[in-house]
Amino acid sequence: MKTYLDCIPCFLRQALEMARMSSSDPAIHEHVLREVLSWVSHMDMNVPPPVMARRIHRYLKKLTNNPDPYQEVKLQQMTLALKLAEEFRAKIKHSPWPFGWAARLAIGANVIDSGINVDISETAVRHTLQLALEEDLIGDLVELEREVQSANEVLYLADNAGEIVFDRLLIERIKPAKVTVVVRGAPILNDATIKEAQMAGLHEIATIISSGVDAPGILLDEASPELKTAWERANIIIAKGQGNFETLWGINRPIYFLFKVKCAVVAKHVGWPVGTFMAIKNQPKECFQSAPEPASW
Amino acid sequence: MKTYLDCIPCFLRQALEMARMSSSDPAIHEHVLREVLSWVSHMDMNVPPPVMARRIHRYLKKLTNNPDPYQEVKLQQMTLALKLAEEFRAKIKHSPWPFGWAARLAIGANVIDSGINVDISETAVRHTLQLALEEDLIGDLVELEREVQSANEVLYLADNAGEIVFDRLLIERIKPAKVTVVVRGAPILNDATIKEAQMAGLHEIATIISSGVDAPGILLDEASPELKTAWERANIIIAKGQGNFETLWGINRPIYFLFKVKCAVVAKHVGWPVGTFMAIKNQPKECFQSAPEPASW
Repeated sequence: MKTYLDCIPCFLRQALEMARMSSSDPAIHEHVLREVLSWVSHMDMNVPPPVMARRIHRYLKKLTNNPDPYQEVKLQQMTLALKLAEEFRAKIKHSPWPFGWAARLAIGANVIDSGINVDISETAVRHTLQLALEEDLIGDLVELEREVQSANEVLYLADNAGEIVFDRLLIERIKPAKVTVVVRGAPILNDATIKEAQMAGLHEIATIISSGVDAPGILLDEASPELKTAWERANIIIAKGQGNFETLWGINRPIYFLFKVKCAVVAKHVGWPVGTFMAIKNQPKECFQSAPEPASW
Repeated sequence: MKTYLDCIPCFLRQALEMARMSSSDPAIHEHVLREVLSWVSHMDMNVPPPVMARRIHRYLKKLTNNPDPYQEVKLQQMTLALKLAEEFRAKIKHSPWPFGWAARLAIGANVIDSGINVDISETAVRHTLQLALEEDLIGDLVELEREVQSANEVLYLADNAGEIVFDRLLIERIKPAKVTVVVRGAPILNDATIKEAQMAGLHEIATIISSGVDAPGILLDEASPELKTAWERANIIIAKGQGNFETLWGINRPIYFLFKVKCAVVAKHVGWPVGTFMAIKNQPKECFQSAPEPASW
């Protein structure tokens, strides 16, 4: 997905939040904001939005000499998710359709996203997770279940810390031994890295690899050799979160995008309102040549 | 009030809205946004936010050769307000405290603000006006009534089109002959100019003058000679709207600021949440020297 003009105010908001997360010095906040303003004034709008988030984050890491400003936030989010997961694991187990419930909860947990909202309370997350079991959902989880169960190799592109604990609940409902979980190549926002995947215990049941990319999305040109290999071998790919949607939507592979629509730009792009639960499959490439920005499907 | 870093994402959002209001050409939208990004990257943060809104608007007017992009919107807002005003004029007349009710409605009508929200429906405005009669209000309308009734000359700084019709309802409760109404010196956003003041019939009951300033606030250095004279002569000044608050707060004159808190930055500045109805009086200058950015009062 390209960058829309409406993404620009959001880049500035994110830059300010990232700067405040990285440093308590107002001079650094102002300096970073002015830098980002200058970059955005010349940016190529054909790249997906996560590329700008990556650039801001890289700059902040260097400026503040802090390789992981969201470390503490991620730890809080992991702790919260690990606590909530036990409660919801029991619900999944006793549900009429464990795969469907686990998939819905994994999408619901996508609300734990510091790119959108730094302040995520236990009450808000529990509320979203409970709603996730009933919400209307665009897509077809029955078809997703059929495809992953019949696949030999499933690639699972993770998104955020916290959320990854609920990804585990879904992966448990697939055959975990055939699942490869892809995490970010380096810390970026509150996105999950190998560390958080391990905290969720995913290394005990599935294969974990690094994307090789330090952006809040997958940029295939920069993917690690492990991801490139797994990408080609996978029969089905599950991509969690809006960032992965923004970087991968339109690529000709069998990808299911599982996310909550989090901003007006993506809402307009997909044709469904902010807050919608999505579990949509990539269309074949041909569809996009005539309709690169579908209003709905 | 200085410009805060948090104003910057809002400038970009406003620039995009203004550009879309001024032209249907996406190339112009992108061009303007890139220009504004470049300006903001070098801007002086000590000027109040309306100065940037003015610069964007001036640039758009020149670029599109359209001296008043909000003309149609203002006409709609005036028509809506004139319709609603009759309904509320009757309520004021039969109320236990006509001045207090008129003041509350004039503050409520401040919701008709294209700088914050381009899409303002009749339902939303009527709802806000009805709420305005009951909402908690920070400030002292009894004191305001006492001061305006005993004043010889009252200066009334208007804000938006539509809203100005409700300003008339308040001015009718003062002695209109001693009121001078100040409108913007040129079209800017949906702010009221002489044209809208006349549509509200204010010229029939009070004196109308131009501020001489084409910004959504009063910049005293640039004020018209008429405003400068009236400013010095007035015993009491009523400043409507957040823009006038942003440009005049802290100036050592007896000014009552009547507005709804419309953004997080001003909310933080005044110490009251977004949506709060304000009718607060300027503090003497000495207060500000020790506390230029009060958290509350």
